[in-house]
Amino acid sequence: MSDVRLHTPRGVRDLLPSAARRKGALEQRLASHFSAWGYDPVVTPTFEFMDVFDAAGTAPSAEQLYRLVDREGQVLALRPEMTVPIARLVASRMKEHPAPLRLYYIGSVFRYDEPQSGRLREFTQAGLELIGASGPAADAEVIAVTIEAMMALGLRDFRVDVGHVGFTAGVIDSLGLSVKAATAVRHMLREQDYVGLTGVLEQSGASTEAKETVKALTRLRGGAGVLDEASRLARSEQTERALENVSVVMRHLEDQGVAGWVRIDLGMLKQADYYTGIIVEGYTSEMGYGLCSGGRYDHLLERFGYPAPATGLALGVERLLLALERAGVPNGDEPERIFLVSEPARHREACSTAWRLRRQGYVVEVDVLGMEEDAALAYARRKGMHRTVLFTGAPQGPVELVEGERRRHVAPDDLFENGGRGA
Amino acid sequence: MSDVRLHTPRGVRDLLPSAARRKGALEQRLASHFSAWGYDPVVTPTFEFMDVFDAAGTAPSAEQLYRLVDREGQVLALRPEMTVPIARLVASRMKEHPAPLRLYYIGSVFRYDEPQSGRLREFTQAGLELIGASGPAADAEVIAVTIEAMMALGLRDFRVDVGHVGFTAGVIDSLGLSVKAATAVRHMLREQDYVGLTGVLEQSGASTEAKETVKALTRLRGGAGVLDEASRLARSEQTERALENVSVVMRHLEDQGVAGWVRIDLGMLKQADYYTGIIVEGYTSEMGYGLCSGGRYDHLLERFGYPAPATGLALGVERLLLALERAGVPNGDEPERIFLVSEPARHREACSTAWRLRRQGYVVEVDVLGMEEDAALAYARRKGMHRTVLFTGAPQGPVELVEGERRRHVAPDDLFENGGRGA
Repeated sequence: MSDVRLHTPRGVRDLLPSAARRKGALEQRLASHFSAWGYDPVVTPTFEFMDVFDAAGTAPSAEQLYRLVDREGQVLALRPEMTVPIARLVASRMKEHPAPLRLYYIGSVFRYDEPQSGRLREFTQAGLELIGASGPAADAEVIAVTIEAMMALGLRDFRVDVGHVGFTAGVIDSLGLSVKAATAVRHMLREQDYVGLTGVLEQSGASTEAKETVKALTRLRGGAGVLDEASRLARSEQTERALENVSVVMRHLEDQGVAGWVRIDLGMLKQADYYTGIIVEGYTSEMGYGLCSGGRYDHLLERFGYPAPATGLALGVERLLLALERAGVPNGDEPERIFLVSEPARHREACSTAWRLRRQGYVVEVDVLGMEEDAALAYARRKGMHRTVLFTGAPQGPVELVEGERRRHVAPDDLFENGGRGA
Repeated sequence: MSDVRLHTPRGVRDLLPSAARRKGALEQRLASHFSAWGYDPVVTPTFEFMDVFDAAGTAPSAEQLYRLVDREGQVLALRPEMTVPIARLVASRMKEHPAPLRLYYIGSVFRYDEPQSGRLREFTQAGLELIGASGPAADAEVIAVTIEAMMALGLRDFRVDVGHVGFTAGVIDSLGLSVKAATAVRHMLREQDYVGLTGVLEQSGASTEAKETVKALTRLRGGAGVLDEASRLARSEQTERALENVSVVMRHLEDQGVAGWVRIDLGMLKQADYYTGIIVEGYTSEMGYGLCSGGRYDHLLERFGYPAPATGLALGVERLLLALERAGVPNGDEPERIFLVSEPARHREACSTAWRLRRQGYVVEVDVLGMEEDAALAYARRKGMHRTVLFTGAPQGPVELVEGERRRHVAPDDLFENGGRGA
């Protein structure tokens, strides 16, 4: 037995029934929610040609990709995210569909990461892409759908930060830092490593004013007032346009009735290099770990030969489940579970009774072990059955119904909600 | 652009919205159906340690596995099926759960196969495992759940073949063939290659009687009468026990009311070497390609250190979708789609109207392109919108409702089913 692995590889995991049921129910609710906003599902393969991610400037670095070589000798990669595969799909097969395209997906993605709390190597993303719309209404829509999704799931304590690549990068570009220093500054902002940022600035030989400007960036967080402050910090055409864009998106978020969950954060930068405008990160309020992430990527589809503006957001399903659990949000109602046990002569009756009860919405198990009464009642207790029905005695005769401590004989038809007629 | 792959790797594919929606709806119906029978969902990782499949005698051969090496230098394989990972999961983490365990799964599996019609390298299996029950009632239950699942989806023209490893292998063992010849015979039966089988038998040096017996095996198909024929063909203790087992399973299938879809096929053998008893294959009647597959595997969990009998069946989701399409089974009802277009001054009204309509079950898109009326109506036509609502004119005033060729002004509240009160 020593060579048989009983555990899963590092960073991936099994879900036992209660966790799997919660995850499935959450995914189902997200799918309904996205559909209600007019988003249509798409599915892409679990792996793509490596070139697809190389060409796209995808978020995870090359070392974070799981690679495999296929029988034809091509290098493949397990998808580390869904935006790039969907850009490929749209560019290759959906150019003729009327714009804008509203698409959603729910699927596993794979990244080598040091497994920490909530950081798995296989995890599920549920997200939206709104393709073919360049205006702020589109950015606001994907943010609103995402916020309303979290609300619909029962989350209340969360916050969605909105920044702008054009502003943050524009400010850094205007400071006259060396290429190396500018790269290091962007890296530290991406990682939100403000201690590291101070170190990088000290070693950069940047002017005092430049250092202060970068530090000020990290404090540009809050409501609409932040935009005025930001406007004093930098006045290039690029940064002004970016601030105007954030301002209009915020107005649209007010129209959508979700502005209360949104904070402006102009020090934000993201790992993927395909973002071109508004960028978004959502967090739980108390714990500060990420729930959703996304932004505008107007040049990604062009890399696949189809120039089209686009914006999107992805929710982390495992993170949502954890946040809901920690917030004590109750799971949905469980259907009533019924256990049927029969003597051999009444097995057919038990099977057809089970069939009719299932049609009325009950979860019904029929014994397959030939259990004696004591074993049956013990099993029913351990499995949390609401009712156990014992098909003993003469065929077609009464059955014994056990509910908790209460036992009584009833006619089989009385097991049905409508007395057995019409089921 | 030449190095950017616009297509998917060989044998895998994208699903555009209508196909993705059909697949999602089918998976959802299967999940509800399995749940109604008391089966609980489990999820396992997309990849496992290679050793897990090596240890288990999994169905696909080693060459059919997609392998990858992880950062810790371990050899991993994308799962080629779900029964082995679930056996590992149950043996490692569910031993304390009350028996029997009823588990279901829906997930992608991966096999290198020459892509043919309906044979993909990534495909979805939806299946059941009933663990901890050794009797024929358990085998009959998983067969009944599977048949009722296909019925519930709207399939009518299908057939489920039931065989028995103990009978077929027992007959072959009793013939005194060389090891090489017996292996070749089993291979040809697995592949249902009866021309190849004849060739193998000719070259085997087997007795005429042995040859006739093997050929007779391939004709042991049909109703209960087949069992009598089979009993004349071989009379070892093993084969008699196997036939008795098939006979009792058939009686249970009658109790379940599904015997009409079942045919006995005693020439059947399967690729996976972990099957120990009843084996099952389901086919579409007219086309003869596989819809479901499974059987009893009483020693698989033991290979992971937990001796427990088990039986299970898996449905091929893509095959089911194809069969439903070819049978002309209509898709479920589409929700009504509504398109809202607003002037900037009425955008907030449009957003809140959309929100209320979504709560009433409509799919509602709000324009994000600032479309003019003509563009809006053209988009609505192409997308199959049932209604378009134009928020023009004075705020809070009437809106214009367009349904096909009919246009009229209505109060915004009249868009709601209950006149706008209580939504």
